[in-house]
Amino acid sequence: MPTYTPPTKDQQFLLHDVLKISESDIPGYDELDRDFTAAVLEEAGKIAANVLQPLNTVGDTEGCTLENGVVRTPTGFKAAWDEMAQGGWMGLDAAPENGGQGMPHLVNTATGELFSSANMAFQMYVGLSHGAASALAVHGTDAQKQTYLPPIYDGRWSGTMNLTEPHCGTDLGLMRTKAEPQDDGSYKVTGQKIWISGGENDLVENIVHLVLAKTPDAPEGIKGVSLFVVPKFLVKDDGTLGERNSLSCGGLEEKMGIHGNATCVMNYDGATGWLVGDLHKGMRAMFTMMNEARLAVALQGYTQGEVAYQNALGFARDRLQGRDVTGTQNPDGPADPIIVHPDVRRNLLDQKSITEGGRALVYWGAQMIDRSQRMNDEDAEEMISLLIPVMKGFLTDKGFETTVLAQQTLGGSGFTKEWGLEQFVRDARIAMIYEGTNGIQSLDLVGRKLPSNGGKAIMAFFEMVRTFIKENEDNQALKEGFLDPLKTASKDLQAAGMYFMQEGMKNPLNALSGSYDFMHLFGHTVVGLMWAQMAKAAMEALDSGASDKEFYETKITTGRYYMARQLPMTATHLVRIQSGAEPVMALDAANF
Amino acid sequence: MPTYTPPTKDQQFLLHDVLKISESDIPGYDELDRDFTAAVLEEAGKIAANVLQPLNTVGDTEGCTLENGVVRTPTGFKAAWDEMAQGGWMGLDAAPENGGQGMPHLVNTATGELFSSANMAFQMYVGLSHGAASALAVHGTDAQKQTYLPPIYDGRWSGTMNLTEPHCGTDLGLMRTKAEPQDDGSYKVTGQKIWISGGENDLVENIVHLVLAKTPDAPEGIKGVSLFVVPKFLVKDDGTLGERNSLSCGGLEEKMGIHGNATCVMNYDGATGWLVGDLHKGMRAMFTMMNEARLAVALQGYTQGEVAYQNALGFARDRLQGRDVTGTQNPDGPADPIIVHPDVRRNLLDQKSITEGGRALVYWGAQMIDRSQRMNDEDAEEMISLLIPVMKGFLTDKGFETTVLAQQTLGGSGFTKEWGLEQFVRDARIAMIYEGTNGIQSLDLVGRKLPSNGGKAIMAFFEMVRTFIKENEDNQALKEGFLDPLKTASKDLQAAGMYFMQEGMKNPLNALSGSYDFMHLFGHTVVGLMWAQMAKAAMEALDSGASDKEFYETKITTGRYYMARQLPMTATHLVRIQSGAEPVMALDAANF
Repeated sequence: MPTYTPPTKDQQFLLHDVLKISESDIPGYDELDRDFTAAVLEEAGKIAANVLQPLNTVGDTEGCTLENGVVRTPTGFKAAWDEMAQGGWMGLDAAPENGGQGMPHLVNTATGELFSSANMAFQMYVGLSHGAASALAVHGTDAQKQTYLPPIYDGRWSGTMNLTEPHCGTDLGLMRTKAEPQDDGSYKVTGQKIWISGGENDLVENIVHLVLAKTPDAPEGIKGVSLFVVPKFLVKDDGTLGERNSLSCGGLEEKMGIHGNATCVMNYDGATGWLVGDLHKGMRAMFTMMNEARLAVALQGYTQGEVAYQNALGFARDRLQGRDVTGTQNPDGPADPIIVHPDVRRNLLDQKSITEGGRALVYWGAQMIDRSQRMNDEDAEEMISLLIPVMKGFLTDKGFETTVLAQQTLGGSGFTKEWGLEQFVRDARIAMIYEGTNGIQSLDLVGRKLPSNGGKAIMAFFEMVRTFIKENEDNQALKEGFLDPLKTASKDLQAAGMYFMQEGMKNPLNALSGSYDFMHLFGHTVVGLMWAQMAKAAMEALDSGASDKEFYETKITTGRYYMARQLPMTATHLVRIQSGAEPVMALDAANF
Repeated sequence: MPTYTPPTKDQQFLLHDVLKISESDIPGYDELDRDFTAAVLEEAGKIAANVLQPLNTVGDTEGCTLENGVVRTPTGFKAAWDEMAQGGWMGLDAAPENGGQGMPHLVNTATGELFSSANMAFQMYVGLSHGAASALAVHGTDAQKQTYLPPIYDGRWSGTMNLTEPHCGTDLGLMRTKAEPQDDGSYKVTGQKIWISGGENDLVENIVHLVLAKTPDAPEGIKGVSLFVVPKFLVKDDGTLGERNSLSCGGLEEKMGIHGNATCVMNYDGATGWLVGDLHKGMRAMFTMMNEARLAVALQGYTQGEVAYQNALGFARDRLQGRDVTGTQNPDGPADPIIVHPDVRRNLLDQKSITEGGRALVYWGAQMIDRSQRMNDEDAEEMISLLIPVMKGFLTDKGFETTVLAQQTLGGSGFTKEWGLEQFVRDARIAMIYEGTNGIQSLDLVGRKLPSNGGKAIMAFFEMVRTFIKENEDNQALKEGFLDPLKTASKDLQAAGMYFMQEGMKNPLNALSGSYDFMHLFGHTVVGLMWAQMAKAAMEALDSGASDKEFYETKITTGRYYMARQLPMTATHLVRIQSGAEPVMALDAANF
């Protein structure tokens, strides 16, 4: 059975040594001193390790069942949900006037990491509800907010997002679900939605569905899509539940992983709903939530990597096979632990350096979302918008890769259900697909975010890298191991951007053919920046006489590994990008 | 439901246009003209597509069950087994005097590809039996061969390989299973073996277990291991079955994939067995079989890639989402098929170029095994021994990667069980682990094969590449797209070998830390050589006025893609290798 230990120390290092959050000018951050975040993370860690983690295998094994329209979640999920609700974790970063705790999004991200590592399928019920509530909080009327938000944030109700239909996922302009206006201002919503996470469940009294649909007079395509709130039970004026709405769960998907989460076919048969936000502006309402939603998926990538790494590490320390080539390390045992072998260490350090770099990137992203939302900082908004597809695409690819590496550490045991590593692989796989496949992320990055506002955000990113290098180039330890490789990676990224500008002008296919490589090239570069910042923070801590020397030295050593052995991938991505459209487009579709 | 179409044309291209087998001097190859192999492949293809493929999902869903010591394989497996047996497929390449068909190993490899793509879990029963029989054919006494081989090759009996024990897999010197000599020349075998594929099954009348064990007087460690044949039912002098031996299946593993194959815990309780080969030379007997067994696993890698690619391609042609940025391709439909999008093509071409390159490499390897075995050609034996860890490690990593890419082509549908892609991912995963994990392959390559015989084999490989380039450098079309990138890759490989020689002398950890990257660097280079050879063969076919122009042009275009976008990975592998032991070894085991 796999285990999970909350990595509180690593989290605190990022929040306080690297991001120095309590010194930040973001409203609400001044309260976030070391003791405060330690207390929050400790409480969340207890729930993660003691309540959610033991249910992870249960959820995978039992899965969800649908009987007579009722979805049963796995044994223990309802009790865990109630415990989460009572602890106030559902609305940790929601506005107090809507029933939330008013904490920064960064804190919710850090606690969400713990829940997600412990039980990704469970945490999806929480995360999707949170996402639906956030959309309502931004775009709903005051009445809608008063009706729906407090019950979601106190865990009595849950929420869902309904986008996909059988014939359209990426291309939502093809949507067929209809919303017909009624005389009382409501709409009758009719259509089928698929892949609705938590669309039906036995955790809550009511489910608040946010549904994209088209009104009869709507313009063609994506510009005719509107957003509707369609509750499972209609809500009376006093907030109590009224009659059952005309919607139902028509089936559950059988899937590769996240079995504990119910993936529902949802049928709307003239269900009563109300417009959220402006008519025909449904996609815009969704886009508002996209940074937050995609950051949450980026987080899923490294959180599955984290728990997989922990279990791989435990195995590598316990399993005795072979001897250290440089001399026996465990003379009293029949063999040495396999962590002595260079290739096992290579494998573990890939896992560790990617996971810790990914965490840094996601926390920085969450801080930018706070800066954007709490200070209306447009620069932060532009930077996070640029980086979101990188975070989602790169970190979920790398998170999945990490679970596969961790599984490999265990050899044959990694393939068995007994050790649990294979579940992390199966669960992590979905994060590369949903919230926009990683291919779509790369198109969003190259086609939309990169050229946006004349390339202002990417220029600001390069400036940030340049400034960091310049400010620290007198630090010799940092320069050789971190700043020099970062400079090389950043140059590769600039060269790729230049190639897109020059050759993409001539033929857009030259840019689109390299979009996936660009996403990874950017991902490596920005994680390289994170490691350089972490190394600097660790060196400062050591210089100021921090007691836990080994912890900070380990950060530097892990970072040096990343810079030496992961970051050089930027060169190959650049070569691929510069090969242009020809190799990708040459073959006729009929001849594949 | 996934589909599978035997890629007969691609197979024939390799056998006749590239390897030109019927012109070869290898005994038995002169019979292998186009018509002959076409007939064999067509028959095998029918069984693969019509009998085995429909059982692939069944096997995954039902799995195997153990009840009262009896293992039941999934519905239909027994009938399929009997059909395979009646067709003579079990002993296709076995010696006629042992009851086989006497065909070259290459032909068995080509038919095995079809069975493995169609149903990997099923084909493992066939493959493991074949492996056990091959070990007996080489090391068994005449009496042992007469007793065990004909019933295995005609499919009445099956065979297994018993190496792993709970506390040892890689480090078999720690083995505890005992074999005590009896007065009649037999041994009593006692111990527990795990992960025994097909250890118990209902396909056959008898199961011939090959078991590694130690005699009481054996030297310590790996040098004290002997090989024994331990049948489930003892065999009477007339070949009929006698009493049940003291061995049993103690349990089935629950695993990530290959559910149709029974992975057994085998308990030997003083079971009667007989020595195979020399006392204390059990590992040598196993090693004899290793090239063949590991080539079979390398094949599994690309065969799962092949079937996954076929289904991804079908989806990419059918699924309508979005429009071609260069102009609408499907004006009568609501959207264009997704194969028009550059990033979808990039994904498909990665799959296609890796799979076809992998097939070429495996066929070439099978031909070298024939050359080694049928002509006692030591150069071929040394070359295949050098390349086997590369083929096994690189092609199974890439095969798994291909299934993941194919799954990604389908977006959300790829994650559902309904479309079947996720099974290919789960099944392909095991090939990176068994028959020696890919980490172990890389150690075998760098620690043993590379320096073997003064580096003779790797020198011969470089000479082969040099000669090929030199002989063809006047061919401009080949030079730019193929020979130049191949030269670059080969130089990277040479530089890595040089680094190991120079720095590995000083500190062996400098070589061991780069072993995995070296395996991939070598893999890319040799697949690059395969593509250069395929391109040359395709150009020759076009020059000689071959009727199927598009087929040959597609080969060249696919190869150009590989050279432009896959092969450049060699540079990054070299940089990682040259970073040496320091980044990998710096961190103390306690601080991971």
